Amino acid sequence: MLHEITAGTALTARLFEALRLASQDPPGVSRASYGAGEAAAHALARAEAQALGLECHADPAGNLFMTLPGADRGLPATFIGSHLDAVPHAGNFDGAAGVVMGLAACASLRAHGTTLPRDLTVMAVRAEEMCWFPAFYLGSRAAFGLIPAQLPDEVRRSDSGRTLAEHMAEQGLDPDFLRLGQTSLHPARLHCFIEPHIEQGPQLAAAGIPVAVVTGIRGSLRHPRCLARGRWGHAGAEPRANRADAVLAAADLATALEAFWLAEEAAGRDLVLTLGEFHTPAAMHGPTKIPGELRFSLDIRSEDRAVLDAAAALLATRAQSIAEQRGVSLDYGAGMRVEPLRMAPWLRAALNAGAATARVPVLEMASGAGHDALIFGQQGVDCAMLFIRNTGGSHNPDEAMEPADFNAALAVLLAALPAICAA
Amino acid sequence: MLHEITAGTALTARLFEALRLASQDPPGVSRASYGAGEAAAHALARAEAQALGLECHADPAGNLFMTLPGADRGLPATFIGSHLDAVPHAGNFDGAAGVVMGLAACASLRAHGTTLPRDLTVMAVRAEEMCWFPAFYLGSRAAFGLIPAQLPDEVRRSDSGRTLAEHMAEQGLDPDFLRLGQTSLHPARLHCFIEPHIEQGPQLAAAGIPVAVVTGIRGSLRHPRCLARGRWGHAGAEPRANRADAVLAAADLATALEAFWLAEEAAGRDLVLTLGEFHTPAAMHGPTKIPGELRFSLDIRSEDRAVLDAAAALLATRAQSIAEQRGVSLDYGAGMRVEPLRMAPWLRAALNAGAATARVPVLEMASGAGHDALIFGQQGVDCAMLFIRNTGGSHNPDEAMEPADFNAALAVLLAALPAICAA
Repeated sequence: MLHEITAGTALTARLFEALRLASQDPPGVSRASYGAGEAAAHALARAEAQALGLECHADPAGNLFMTLPGADRGLPATFIGSHLDAVPHAGNFDGAAGVVMGLAACASLRAHGTTLPRDLTVMAVRAEEMCWFPAFYLGSRAAFGLIPAQLPDEVRRSDSGRTLAEHMAEQGLDPDFLRLGQTSLHPARLHCFIEPHIEQGPQLAAAGIPVAVVTGIRGSLRHPRCLARGRWGHAGAEPRANRADAVLAAADLATALEAFWLAEEAAGRDLVLTLGEFHTPAAMHGPTKIPGELRFSLDIRSEDRAVLDAAAALLATRAQSIAEQRGVSLDYGAGMRVEPLRMAPWLRAALNAGAATARVPVLEMASGAGHDALIFGQQGVDCAMLFIRNTGGSHNPDEAMEPADFNAALAVLLAALPAICAA
Repeated sequence: MLHEITAGTALTARLFEALRLASQDPPGVSRASYGAGEAAAHALARAEAQALGLECHADPAGNLFMTLPGADRGLPATFIGSHLDAVPHAGNFDGAAGVVMGLAACASLRAHGTTLPRDLTVMAVRAEEMCWFPAFYLGSRAAFGLIPAQLPDEVRRSDSGRTLAEHMAEQGLDPDFLRLGQTSLHPARLHCFIEPHIEQGPQLAAAGIPVAVVTGIRGSLRHPRCLARGRWGHAGAEPRANRADAVLAAADLATALEAFWLAEEAAGRDLVLTLGEFHTPAAMHGPTKIPGELRFSLDIRSEDRAVLDAAAALLATRAQSIAEQRGVSLDYGAGMRVEPLRMAPWLRAALNAGAATARVPVLEMASGAGHDALIFGQQGVDCAMLFIRNTGGSHNPDEAMEPADFNAALAVLLAALPAICAA
């Protein structure tokens, strides 16, 4: 199968280099949502698509659709895509790899003379990175008409202080499209959405495997500002029964959460949890004071709604038992819950079959971070993701994706696409 | 027996009020070690002793000895005492209560015409509070010749910045006594040392009991600057096996220490432990970062050397297992160990018998904080302590000791003294 990817490989090298040059901001690249770097990336993608003879159009939110016509133009189209914006001083690949891979697939199909059973649309999504505007998945939500009416005039970009509406208008785009909840995508007109993306963790590198078929995007339960409140006291004089020790209470919770994690893992259920902040107050604490206060954060993620439900129940029961047994109140503060997305089993099966055909070893893994696919999935669109090995993490200039690994993922996709589009 | 304490009660009220007036520094009192407040307190104590006809002398370190002659003047003397210095803006009773009670006992014995079998010496110790000079138990260590030669010229008082030697000379005392390691007490010449003191915790108040017979002064094992070092990572993407989570590792240690505490407590062994500081670094941590670092303090206290040994062993084995299982290193940093002091069983028995005779309900409890008795005990002198109920904690102007509770402790002491001195 590998001869099929030659045309795609040439496009890939050219387009990544052009993207890098158009958005360089040492160290790394910057492509602000609805800013110059993102606009330049969209122009470069469109130019490659036009050179391939794809049908191109953008919606009023700036999302770009580049379509390789299929045999039956009346069927819902297979979508491949991701975003083209990037955090400040980012690597070149987070987001862009998905768009480049869609175009590289089209180039290979064109070179091979293959016509798929249905349209293949490469979508370059706008404004995925939350660091620019304090709102998530702006481009994909806009395409489905999911943006609240006031939002374009409320959220301001972190670098400029100007509103989303102002930045859209400056780019020749139409904030009324968002304000009025108009749509450029309808779930019934999408066959599926496939999002290739660099892995943002180290699992592929650790396993020595170039590509992963993603099983799902983890949902999350987050409480960023929790407080354990006990009572300050003298370390030497207070017997155990009189103490309300915030550190021991919070350690009790942490240990209980870890035991829950081990049990879920043993039962084969997906879970990661993190107490990333965990601190007695510097202005109050001391080595000979019983700690009366500890602040902490909770971040719990799973592909499985039932696991998030069980975690929420554990938090509640443990707060009660800790209050009763230790006299320490646990206040979890405001919480945010995002439901997990399971990737479509038939798409996972097709991608695994494609990997076997292309002789590319693949892992199956959950995505810890959210992606545009989450919005497509919430709209009922069948979704899949491919992860590409990356040794440098993401959201930093050290992102490191080898061309050979990108090409391996492209080979998987090309091997799988005929069956996917025929499904 | 209560008629015996009338003369003591009058002295008590008079002397506490005189002490308060001589050292007031609103809020509360201040009696700096080798400063004006302490000197005034010593002068007031000596005046009361002289009025009672006690034999008075001070050693060159300023420790004051006030002796009620007994029947056999050749026998080692029974000592009662404590310190007369006080932290800035302190209450009036921490330390002073022990000296006042010794004098009140002498007043009552005189009034009653009782001659004890041996001399009873009330000792007002100098410089017990560490907040003034960065050195512990200066007065009692000086009396036994235990001060390092250079120390009088090295340590400087926190308020004045001047050396101990300078402050001693200013008070007409002799720093050479310390420099040369001369002694004013010899363990063989002490029958025993009894230190009455206000309780610095809330146990007596919580139990509704006025007096405690102290079982021992807890020793301690302290590691004020411990570090759990793991590896920073992304909360969403890292599976459990790849993580080196400093919070979960430190929570593991805290939970293990608490389990150890519960087991020791169930076995009837004395222990308190405190992780007073426990914090991920604010400059690095975040709700979506796997915590790579946590700093904490350890303060472990017990009356029982074997418990401190077991705690030290647990710290070592747990550091090893946590490193092996979690990839997180636990570095406890520099440690300080102070051995516990057990009160002499025969003195505890005599004081409990005195309480029964005087019909004063007493608790038995450990002292969490150190006291001058620790130095006497380390020299091989049999020691005892009585705690008096106090609802306001210590080292603050809210110290609150009721005269009735002081008188209850005095009644216990007076009821016990004949048997103690006859032993």
